[in-house]
Amino acid sequence: MTTTASEIERKAGEAKAAARRLSTLSTEVKDDALARLADALEARAGEVLAANAADLARGRAEGLSDAVLDRLTLSEARLRGIAADVRQVARLPDPVGETLEMRTLPNGLLVGKMRVPFGVIGAIYENRPNVTVDIASLCLKAGSATILRGGKEALQSNIVLGRIIDDALRAAGVPDGAVQVIESADRSIVSEMLAMKDCIDLVVPRGGEELIRFVEKNAQMPVLIGGIGVCHTYVDADADLDKARDIVVNAKTRRYSICNALDTLVVHAAVAPRFLPRIADSLGDRDVELRCDARAYDVIGERPNVVPATDADFGKEFLALVASVKVVDSYEDATDFIYRYSSGHSDAIVTENYTTAMRFLREVDTAVCYVNASTQFTDGGQFGLGAEIIDATQKAHARGPVGLREICTYKWIVFGTGQTRPA
Amino acid sequence: MTTTASEIERKAGEAKAAARRLSTLSTEVKDDALARLADALEARAGEVLAANAADLARGRAEGLSDAVLDRLTLSEARLRGIAADVRQVARLPDPVGETLEMRTLPNGLLVGKMRVPFGVIGAIYENRPNVTVDIASLCLKAGSATILRGGKEALQSNIVLGRIIDDALRAAGVPDGAVQVIESADRSIVSEMLAMKDCIDLVVPRGGEELIRFVEKNAQMPVLIGGIGVCHTYVDADADLDKARDIVVNAKTRRYSICNALDTLVVHAAVAPRFLPRIADSLGDRDVELRCDARAYDVIGERPNVVPATDADFGKEFLALVASVKVVDSYEDATDFIYRYSSGHSDAIVTENYTTAMRFLREVDTAVCYVNASTQFTDGGQFGLGAEIIDATQKAHARGPVGLREICTYKWIVFGTGQTRPA
Repeated sequence: MTTTASEIERKAGEAKAAARRLSTLSTEVKDDALARLADALEARAGEVLAANAADLARGRAEGLSDAVLDRLTLSEARLRGIAADVRQVARLPDPVGETLEMRTLPNGLLVGKMRVPFGVIGAIYENRPNVTVDIASLCLKAGSATILRGGKEALQSNIVLGRIIDDALRAAGVPDGAVQVIESADRSIVSEMLAMKDCIDLVVPRGGEELIRFVEKNAQMPVLIGGIGVCHTYVDADADLDKARDIVVNAKTRRYSICNALDTLVVHAAVAPRFLPRIADSLGDRDVELRCDARAYDVIGERPNVVPATDADFGKEFLALVASVKVVDSYEDATDFIYRYSSGHSDAIVTENYTTAMRFLREVDTAVCYVNASTQFTDGGQFGLGAEIIDATQKAHARGPVGLREICTYKWIVFGTGQTRPA
Repeated sequence: MTTTASEIERKAGEAKAAARRLSTLSTEVKDDALARLADALEARAGEVLAANAADLARGRAEGLSDAVLDRLTLSEARLRGIAADVRQVARLPDPVGETLEMRTLPNGLLVGKMRVPFGVIGAIYENRPNVTVDIASLCLKAGSATILRGGKEALQSNIVLGRIIDDALRAAGVPDGAVQVIESADRSIVSEMLAMKDCIDLVVPRGGEELIRFVEKNAQMPVLIGGIGVCHTYVDADADLDKARDIVVNAKTRRYSICNALDTLVVHAAVAPRFLPRIADSLGDRDVELRCDARAYDVIGERPNVVPATDADFGKEFLALVASVKVVDSYEDATDFIYRYSSGHSDAIVTENYTTAMRFLREVDTAVCYVNASTQFTDGGQFGLGAEIIDATQKAHARGPVGLREICTYKWIVFGTGQTRPA
């Protein structure tokens, strides 16, 4: 215990010291560091792949599932993709120092907000080693230091990536200690991190529900929670059913294993007889199983890919080629249903009715609220943020895609000329 | 226990149900409710003052201190002041529905953020009954429901204020349950509130350090922390010493019991011999005790109001006519000192040097960073926000004065025309 405790304590202290200097680092130095990192990821691919092969060999010996081994696997092509993402972050505007809401008060004080770095950001994640580079590069650009705790399955990969990051940042003149990769696989380190509120300003868990809930429950500092999406698309009575078909098929099948994939299709009774058999065809062609409430089941009829839904099929994130289907009698019933079951990640309406569309945008309380588009767009890159840390499903601090701006905080700045406040 | 548990559970459930309807309530209805509330606070002053007299009598019998009794005391004049504040909130722009960062993407999606209510906001505070009306009115305007738990000393006052709020809101057509005043004085209710993360979206403690630390440590939902200010004013080598004197005197003495009052005066050695005796005169005239480090003590010399500082006098919030004084050799030493001791509330520099001023604004990480002005300006009203919930000293969500905008969250809204995301 002593050695692991000292590793996290030492690294957190170093990160805090680095954070102060990082907060005023020039954009040029940060972008140079990112360019060097991208180059090094390609130039030193052999080193990374050797460490990754060791992780994979150990993982196979320990009987990890194919899905985990797949997430763990790096390749020359994947490293080029990661390097490209780092170069993209370098091209994004620096959020630090942006001003908001500046105004001159009647007493002459010029007052407003300035976007500033958060400080030290802790990330706790699982078996994907690319997350190490993703979070380090985004946080560096946003002026924050990072403490990165990946899964033990990816430990050797993460250690080598950490060294490559260190070398690139040092060569560019970034203060030492800006990125700290935890090298101990001891699980108790997570609990220690979550108690270090004096050193770590924000924690971001990335992984499965169990990890997220553990971090949320135990962190003494603020947490950005994301990743769990129970996503609805509501096909309204006034929907264009061709658009609805394309949107629903895309939302479910473009990628089904991501958190913004459709889980539940909600259909207005007025269009259910025309729409449901068509969408059952289209989704059936793509091997999607439909778990239907009684009314939807009656309309669609017996098919190989259609089964009756149980209560557990609503409010459920499938992450699979499965969707539940609910028929409602009104817009109000649809939004009541979404209020009850949505996880507040991404929900959509398909309608040609302007008033209904505008009501939905105002009334449905979800991180990303769509009219006539696929929920698969929920993504920092798609939204023009360049990249993202997570898609947040909480309400505090940031919601939806968390990019460079959203991973910052702000302070108020006041330019005076000697003003004092009257009694 | 059963009865108190059922009160908070019932009220939290009602607040959550109200919050959904409140989130889309028109500005007109909210402002009408606030106008009715302001009128009722004046028209029903007798009811409030009778309840307040009961609280005061009980408080005196229990031996509460004069300071507590003073904070607890209402009067016709104070009620008129509270009513005026409510009318001011009604005049402020409605933050709900404001849009930010709207842009049209190359694929035609119109994407941006919309400011939306937080949901249910819990407030836990002490013996000032005006907080009940302050928080209820601000949160109502910002579209959130509130659960208000004041100190047991003010219980009768708060119960009557809660009824007046209820009546005014109901008459205006605000959904029932929007403002919930907890009527039990049982302390265990606070712990219960802090565990109700499914009903309460955000908790705001307002009171002393013990309360704030308890809430911060135990809340399962996000917390807005404020109220503890260890505030510095740094008089630079290039300061205009007349401005410095006015600013320091105002920052310390305009009101000394508020969190943005000056605690520590930091003076550059180059101006210490000219500045310190003058400021010791000015502050001495106003009965301020100065606790001086060795160098400051040497410069000022023996006076009735000057004593040597101990280590405990730095990083300390005095809330009294006391200030500590530190002499430094450079700008860097000053900002290192502030980095070490500031609570991140309000810190100021006095300088005529443009480059030094701009460096201070970038480098000092505090909620409100001042050049050439008194830290006593840190206040939502002074900053043009109209009013504030608290001055936050954390980094997540909101920092510094928390007004109507800052007590909201946002969601992303996406206007599509049938877009689907390419593979």
